[in-house]
Amino acid sequence: MRNIAVTVSYDGTDFNGFQSQPYGRTIQQEIELAIKKLTGEDLIIIGSGRTDAGVHATGQVFNFFTESAIPAERWAIALNTRLPKDIVIMDAFEVPEQFHSRRSAKRKTYRYTIDMGKFPDVFYRRYAFHHPTPLNVEAMQQGLSCLVGEHDFTSFTSIHSTKPHHVRTIYEAYFEREGQMLHMYMTGNGFLYNMIRIVMGTLLHVGHGKLKPEDMARILEGRKRSLAGPTAMPHGLMLMKVEYPEQM
Amino acid sequence: MRNIAVTVSYDGTDFNGFQSQPYGRTIQQEIELAIKKLTGEDLIIIGSGRTDAGVHATGQVFNFFTESAIPAERWAIALNTRLPKDIVIMDAFEVPEQFHSRRSAKRKTYRYTIDMGKFPDVFYRRYAFHHPTPLNVEAMQQGLSCLVGEHDFTSFTSIHSTKPHHVRTIYEAYFEREGQMLHMYMTGNGFLYNMIRIVMGTLLHVGHGKLKPEDMARILEGRKRSLAGPTAMPHGLMLMKVEYPEQM
Repeated sequence: MRNIAVTVSYDGTDFNGFQSQPYGRTIQQEIELAIKKLTGEDLIIIGSGRTDAGVHATGQVFNFFTESAIPAERWAIALNTRLPKDIVIMDAFEVPEQFHSRRSAKRKTYRYTIDMGKFPDVFYRRYAFHHPTPLNVEAMQQGLSCLVGEHDFTSFTSIHSTKPHHVRTIYEAYFEREGQMLHMYMTGNGFLYNMIRIVMGTLLHVGHGKLKPEDMARILEGRKRSLAGPTAMPHGLMLMKVEYPEQM
Repeated sequence: MRNIAVTVSYDGTDFNGFQSQPYGRTIQQEIELAIKKLTGEDLIIIGSGRTDAGVHATGQVFNFFTESAIPAERWAIALNTRLPKDIVIMDAFEVPEQFHSRRSAKRKTYRYTIDMGKFPDVFYRRYAFHHPTPLNVEAMQQGLSCLVGEHDFTSFTSIHSTKPHHVRTIYEAYFEREGQMLHMYMTGNGFLYNMIRIVMGTLLHVGHGKLKPEDMARILEGRKRSLAGPTAMPHGLMLMKVEYPEQM
């Protein structure tokens, strides 16, 4: 059996998330269907992680084991012709047997985008959360910086999180402006359920002056979801990339 | 009666063009319906020009005459709350009675975008024409430069054009790269039916070496639609802005 790893981008707007489930269209189901059309195999792909309904990706990664002899460099073209237009395979390569897109992942980078324009940019309406009220971006950046490092992120995850441990390391976190868009980038060794969206919902309170930047550290220490702000809308969130050890 | 001019952006994907017609959803009909909901008036808006099905706008302009006392600066917010999400009013202002968004227009700028990536950028799939075959952009720029100035553009308009005169002036025309996107910008005193799309379809032949850059001048001189290339897909086209004399 060959192990094939694939990088995929998708517009999450019309999906009920990445992972297969009984109701609604999912990215996983569409990809498995495309593989079946191509090779005839009924297989299950392993994603690097779930993304929620409405969340997008430029660089999600998945892998699967196949009997097919199709060369690695042909998979992207072959699958793209069998996929709907809101999923685009970017790259595919053969990887060692032990490669597991979720367990082998070392770093993930997400972006959350806020459209700060007085009126929304119509071409970003599916990819940015429109928030026309003025924001103190400098205070938000200060608050965000409190999260860099190794911390228990219990305050910044959904009470429905199924993970036993809530300690994660954030390597980098910053804001970047692009016209009327405000992007927040976060890179870490892993993220808890709803973590980026709760971070953004809380930072919006900082941006409005309802919270001070240093409150972010206090909220972390409190380890209670109720201390943090609301969960920001899913459609501003994008999984940018997943990184693996070099030898893989 | 007050004359109100409005700048509007729209994602043309799910419209059957700007202008009202018996079949399909149009931008004009949605805007007239929003005005009716707001003021109760059954009125007809005057667009600066039509855009075809699938064509987008960041800066389309229209005007209309109203009995309403709503201040100019309130129109944008009031209409946006009554419009579907794929139409966004950007600005509104009161203009002299003689202002006519089509007849008063002095310059228009369009952009046509080609996605040159090996695979399409999923977030641009509605706004760029995916064309993965390599293009000689320098030759295309040379060919495009032949069109600057005052010319008879009969070769570059649909045989269904209803305009009696085909002489137009192009003030500026150039290509610009942005990542895997190639934008063509054209500014002129007016454009004929399908003109930009036929120019792009012909320049793609230049980019492939099927035509030479200087053939663009020959095609112009021939004044026959059959000399030019095909009409490029509508979804790569965007009306960027419409300019008026300063006193208006």
